[in-house]
Amino acid sequence: MVKLAIDIMGGDYAPLEIIKGVELAMDKYADLEVILFGDEKIISEHLPASPRVQIIHCPDKIDMGEKDPIGEIRRNRNTSLVRAFQAVRDKEADGAVTAGPTQGTVAAAHLIIRRIKGMKRVALCPQLPKLGGKNRFLLDVGANTELRSEHLLQLAQYASIYAREVKGIEKPLVGLMNIGSEPGKGREQEKETFELLQNDPNVNFYGNVEGKEIFSTPCDILITDGFTGNMVMKTCEGVAKAVGTFLKEEINTPKKKIGYLLMKDVFKNFKKTMSPDEIGGANLFGVDGIVVKAHGSSDAYAFSNAINQARLAVLGDVVRKMKAIIGSGEGIELD
Amino acid sequence: MVKLAIDIMGGDYAPLEIIKGVELAMDKYADLEVILFGDEKIISEHLPASPRVQIIHCPDKIDMGEKDPIGEIRRNRNTSLVRAFQAVRDKEADGAVTAGPTQGTVAAAHLIIRRIKGMKRVALCPQLPKLGGKNRFLLDVGANTELRSEHLLQLAQYASIYAREVKGIEKPLVGLMNIGSEPGKGREQEKETFELLQNDPNVNFYGNVEGKEIFSTPCDILITDGFTGNMVMKTCEGVAKAVGTFLKEEINTPKKKIGYLLMKDVFKNFKKTMSPDEIGGANLFGVDGIVVKAHGSSDAYAFSNAINQARLAVLGDVVRKMKAIIGSGEGIELD
Repeated sequence: MVKLAIDIMGGDYAPLEIIKGVELAMDKYADLEVILFGDEKIISEHLPASPRVQIIHCPDKIDMGEKDPIGEIRRNRNTSLVRAFQAVRDKEADGAVTAGPTQGTVAAAHLIIRRIKGMKRVALCPQLPKLGGKNRFLLDVGANTELRSEHLLQLAQYASIYAREVKGIEKPLVGLMNIGSEPGKGREQEKETFELLQNDPNVNFYGNVEGKEIFSTPCDILITDGFTGNMVMKTCEGVAKAVGTFLKEEINTPKKKIGYLLMKDVFKNFKKTMSPDEIGGANLFGVDGIVVKAHGSSDAYAFSNAINQARLAVLGDVVRKMKAIIGSGEGIELD
Repeated sequence: MVKLAIDIMGGDYAPLEIIKGVELAMDKYADLEVILFGDEKIISEHLPASPRVQIIHCPDKIDMGEKDPIGEIRRNRNTSLVRAFQAVRDKEADGAVTAGPTQGTVAAAHLIIRRIKGMKRVALCPQLPKLGGKNRFLLDVGANTELRSEHLLQLAQYASIYAREVKGIEKPLVGLMNIGSEPGKGREQEKETFELLQNDPNVNFYGNVEGKEIFSTPCDILITDGFTGNMVMKTCEGVAKAVGTFLKEEINTPKKKIGYLLMKDVFKNFKKTMSPDEIGGANLFGVDGIVVKAHGSSDAYAFSNAINQARLAVLGDVVRKMKAIIGSGEGIELD
């Protein structure tokens, strides 16, 4: 069985869509048990009782627009997010899922669950849209604006374990985001990271990857600091949006409109491919437990996907396997 | 009259397409005089003689794949690029245009023309594709992997003058590329730069701009360091390419193919909008003269656009106006 702590109060459509998402996931995955953190009355009104569901009443939440999420986490230890993360810390749950605010999630994970011993930084790692034949992982996209080469190496190791155990990619190929493909390109940080990645037995290193190759590179994992990763990820979003606007403006004659109608499935499929609901949430790599941050705008379907993402990471035992690499004293051999 | 030094030997299709590009530009702009640096025999065979054309024989060139362009520039002072830039340095020409290798161009401009006195860094500044109603300038896209806040301020000042004098935008709006829209976001560098831009009388500062707003922001100019700018620019390219590939793969039924044919103008227009030939070359801001780096793959039409870009910058007198801001001793009041 996999036991997940779910923040019912976080997200633009919480609590109802989140509760529906839990129901969808419970129906689909028989090995799933949940502890739900939120307003007990609302939850029990909308979710059928089940021995696989436990409810902890904590109706307070961190607002999506909260200016000082870290302060709020320190001040109020009774929000649904904090309580869910405490359950992970206390090993009552194997992982947690929230659609609450990103910075609040990262901060709470740091403060409550804490990093894996020996792990120097955490990273937010979403999947990029499935263009060019595969879903690629991009990290960090914003947990840390700055990361040093040794941090990037650890994060590449973690992402490699994740891709292998959860996605079944035997030797995930890791690329370093850079401004040129040849070795020696980039800032000091990229040059140092290139060396470390190239010489690490736990990483199958491809080399540098430029922005223009982001959807054509054979890599499964793309590594960079949180500032650059955030820029790259959001630029993808910006271009996709601009393409949509461009098409809308240009389809301005009856002939083009008929063409559009005949091609409608293509555009629908494109929209679906780019949708965060399909992609799932962002993983938070590096804390001592599984944390998935679902998109703030998650509906029930999207949230159920995020729950499954956390479930698969628990089943893949990625945290224990990362601990083995770090050698944090657990003495487990990497299989 | 505007007198430009043209590197005839640089670019994937040099020298013939470059010569044709010069001819196109000469036909179009009666105020244009050129000094052509390259193989005299080939040039005079392909270009009609004119009192507005002067040819300097220097057939050597810096290869597009040259691993050590800086070394090559130091070793051989007789390449067409070096000679063209010497003409700018010696005030024989008002500006230079080349389709040669980017890093070689930046290095040669530094070594030969040199920076404007008081200007701390140079920047490569292309225009982004005209999506969302306007062409926006993005800088730096790779002249410097790292830039400090005071460098970014100077570059914002330069770009503002350029946008005003060359594009006729009275008060160009400047945005700082960042990972969040609120003040206080980003690395120390962004926080410091935000303060400087906000308080500078020569810059009309908008605030932070996220990657997802790159084609919807009201800004005319987007400022960032050369590493981030290069990532953002090339990611745009990568997404556009991926969209094209996606469409090609998805148009796989007769119905969709007919739809595609009816919409063909829309896709053609999209391709044209994204094409570097339409956008022109990248400006090199900060050296003591006008330098335009045309795309390596420039054909005659693209190169003639790059020539016009340099011509307009000369007519806009942007270098002199930047000197006035820096207060480099010329004592000119900013108009």
